Amino acid sequence: MSDSSAFHALTSALRHLPGVGVKSAARMAYHLLQHDRAGALQLSTALAHAVESVRHCALCHTFTEHIVCDTCADPNRERTQLCVVENPADQAALERTGAYQGLFFVLMGRISPLDGLGPADIGLPRLLQRLQGMTDPLHTDQHYPAVKELILATNFTAEGEATAHVIVQALRGTGVQVTRLSRGVPVGSELEYVDLGTIAHALVDRRSAQD
Amino acid sequence: MSDSSAFHALTSALRHLPGVGVKSAARMAYHLLQHDRAGALQLSTALAHAVESVRHCALCHTFTEHIVCDTCADPNRERTQLCVVENPADQAALERTGAYQGLFFVLMGRISPLDGLGPADIGLPRLLQRLQGMTDPLHTDQHYPAVKELILATNFTAEGEATAHVIVQALRGTGVQVTRLSRGVPVGSELEYVDLGTIAHALVDRRSAQD
Repeated sequence: MSDSSAFHALTSALRHLPGVGVKSAARMAYHLLQHDRAGALQLSTALAHAVESVRHCALCHTFTEHIVCDTCADPNRERTQLCVVENPADQAALERTGAYQGLFFVLMGRISPLDGLGPADIGLPRLLQRLQGMTDPLHTDQHYPAVKELILATNFTAEGEATAHVIVQALRGTGVQVTRLSRGVPVGSELEYVDLGTIAHALVDRRSAQD
Repeated sequence: MSDSSAFHALTSALRHLPGVGVKSAARMAYHLLQHDRAGALQLSTALAHAVESVRHCALCHTFTEHIVCDTCADPNRERTQLCVVENPADQAALERTGAYQGLFFVLMGRISPLDGLGPADIGLPRLLQRLQGMTDPLHTDQHYPAVKELILATNFTAEGEATAHVIVQALRGTGVQVTRLSRGVPVGSELEYVDLGTIAHALVDRRSAQD
């Protein structure tokens, strides 16, 4: 490719990015060095800064630069509702709906036996602790009461369903109401083009049209 | 996604990478911060180091950390042959064949009228200067004689062909022999599965089977 060891080091470092193979990495290194050196420096700085400053929220475990994230610290949110999601991107999708005013718990992963990820890897003990209510880690007068309803919003994939199942099992007998996002036909879709599994679930989970 | 401005800065900086959109960037940032902080730091360092140390070879314009790259400095290469390629990846592909012992000239681009890239953007004046022979920029006793044969190895795309065409035009009357990689059926392929344009070219460029 070139005799530059710095170029090769950059190419191999780019492979730490998920989904980037040898050829993509070489293409990225070429692009940055030939066309966007300012962007490369900006990325270098952003990486170092993020690694240094991004930590996990003490309450919901999402990424934040503070001890408690803005969502958890917001006094206007319903603190007895906790929505469990796999990662911050899923949390963002729920936030964009504007339909949820409770708090979140971000697993930062999911159960995946094939990848060797079990209940401990999704922070199940921390979730159980969180459900009991917590005093504010910031030692303000704010209080986080015990959670009354836990909404499972893990993905509707095999791994997301397994994760939801394990959480349901772990919460049996705690008295916390556990709900799950409904499965069904996506809004705006025509039945002709919806996959059969979804239609089957929508039939099983059908609701009264008179509500 | 999260309330972390460092996370958002990282996500937007990752979009400087070619082919990375909003969702990919968020996924990459999440992966690095959650699973590979050491990799993120390594990438940060590699970017800064590459931007600082990678320059262009004074002779062939490829990436190098030296004034003259190892290939150009190699006294065992045939210096009257110059192979013109679009970028270092193409050069690497030719090197891997082991079938070429001459020197290279790396355009670091190609003519692309749609992107506003003309002859000046591929360093045509520098190529013409290089063809006349050069004294060693390192002021050693090495010498780079005038080029006798220029092999066009730009890609066989519309833009690569246009680039080759422009170079051929520019070299008219200089006395330099200009050749082009042959077009034809890829080695190991069955005609049934080869595209028609390739077969048509292979017919037109057919060669004597008695050589």
